[in-house]
Amino acid sequence: MNIHFKNICIVGVGLMGGSFALALKAQGFKGKITGIGRTRKNLIKAKRLGVIDFYTTEYKAAVQNADLVLLATPVGWAEPIVRKIRQHLKKGAIVTDVGSVKSRIVKKIEPLMPKGMHFVGAHPIAGRECSGIECATAELYRNARCIITPGAHTDKKALKKVVQLWKAVGSKVVLMEPEKHDMIFAEVSHLPHVVAYALVNSIAKTENNILHHGGKGLRDMTRIALSSPELWRDICEHNRKNLLNSLRNFSSHVSHLTHLIQRSDWPGLENEFSKAKEARQILE
Amino acid sequence: MNIHFKNICIVGVGLMGGSFALALKAQGFKGKITGIGRTRKNLIKAKRLGVIDFYTTEYKAAVQNADLVLLATPVGWAEPIVRKIRQHLKKGAIVTDVGSVKSRIVKKIEPLMPKGMHFVGAHPIAGRECSGIECATAELYRNARCIITPGAHTDKKALKKVVQLWKAVGSKVVLMEPEKHDMIFAEVSHLPHVVAYALVNSIAKTENNILHHGGKGLRDMTRIALSSPELWRDICEHNRKNLLNSLRNFSSHVSHLTHLIQRSDWPGLENEFSKAKEARQILE
Repeated sequence: MNIHFKNICIVGVGLMGGSFALALKAQGFKGKITGIGRTRKNLIKAKRLGVIDFYTTEYKAAVQNADLVLLATPVGWAEPIVRKIRQHLKKGAIVTDVGSVKSRIVKKIEPLMPKGMHFVGAHPIAGRECSGIECATAELYRNARCIITPGAHTDKKALKKVVQLWKAVGSKVVLMEPEKHDMIFAEVSHLPHVVAYALVNSIAKTENNILHHGGKGLRDMTRIALSSPELWRDICEHNRKNLLNSLRNFSSHVSHLTHLIQRSDWPGLENEFSKAKEARQILE
Repeated sequence: MNIHFKNICIVGVGLMGGSFALALKAQGFKGKITGIGRTRKNLIKAKRLGVIDFYTTEYKAAVQNADLVLLATPVGWAEPIVRKIRQHLKKGAIVTDVGSVKSRIVKKIEPLMPKGMHFVGAHPIAGRECSGIECATAELYRNARCIITPGAHTDKKALKKVVQLWKAVGSKVVLMEPEKHDMIFAEVSHLPHVVAYALVNSIAKTENNILHHGGKGLRDMTRIALSSPELWRDICEHNRKNLLNSLRNFSSHVSHLTHLIQRSDWPGLENEFSKAKEARQILE
């Protein structure tokens, strides 16, 4: 394993942060992992489970010896946290994250980093509906893609180390510009989440317990509506403009199908269904 | 096993019809199963696989000795097929089906049945994205709900026999009025399918190969877009009015979330996400 870091600090020891720590340990990482988070109770549990070696609720104590800091919080917290930790960072420290939106984070955080310290944004495409330290697993990132989004000013050496780190936890690294990343993930991830939430609310409102009548199709289709509302509100906020474009585009497709049904244009409807089926077939 | 039929005819020997035959045989059914369908090639394959005992492409030969006829075709074919078979039905024969929309079928088919013969509509909540005889399995209906939809004039004895038949193939029978059935399934099944097709088309249109970037959430959410376009066009046609209501209701929920994002009302958005999460939690 090619890991250039000895002391790692994980900010937010939940599903993402905890799984990162467990994956490092499973790979034989010999350094120290310190966790910091909102609630001492969760940190105590993480230590008891062997996920982290130390914990603290003080930013200075958490980061002052860290060669690498992983921000594993909802995206909205990344910038405020960097504002709190930057004066305590060790010379040469590297900060990375797991946020699902990258453009704003890269733009806001890069200029905040003191000279000689670097931020390299990452978005591992991994998750479960279940959240919290109890759901963390060393396998979460195994064979998952991890999009790393260097900005115009990203340090090349820091980038290389962060790429190796994400490979070390088992993920397949893809490099992408932050703006391109956010446009693509508005479509393939943020839009589907908003649609799943809308679908559940729309169905649930019609009749008590109506969701019980659904089969496997409905369960599969609405599973992501179990995701954390706080996390997804933050993602929508951070990717607002792209997401609004995606939502408008989606709404016009729904309207189109609705109009075909309204006009009883059944060949036209079948044609749209066939196009979708064909496009979807590339996925598995 | 309590099956009141000796000769069973299955019209349409694909996933649904083939699985029905396999389930009967797995339960020790000793009678004869005759298959009829559009293509001789498929029927030959079904016989070779041991799914059916005989096959024919002539309606008269298929149904004249049958105590029970199962219509296992897309919903749009049920009525035209009944018009073709009714003069050949055996005295006392019972016809049932697997259609996903019930109100129109029950209304159209009941008056077509000759005196002493009966139609009892059924909708087994079972399916796979994979279709055709190759995907048929004796387990398809096991523990799946099967909605049976007696109309005002349904014969009580025929109803009882059809209920026992669907229980014999492993399903859990629920009785429901056809109109109520169609309203509920517009919401929990037909709407989600149309939304999945719209979602795939909407995403696929933005950029070549963009779907490849999606994770498990997108795959789960769009899996039902792999369903048969012909089958789902028919379902939309048969449940047009309910489905249009569901689509309008859904579109207004999407608009509501879009407006919250547009207005940057993040607490309002989180509140909607939380409502959806809570409603969805009852499902697993």
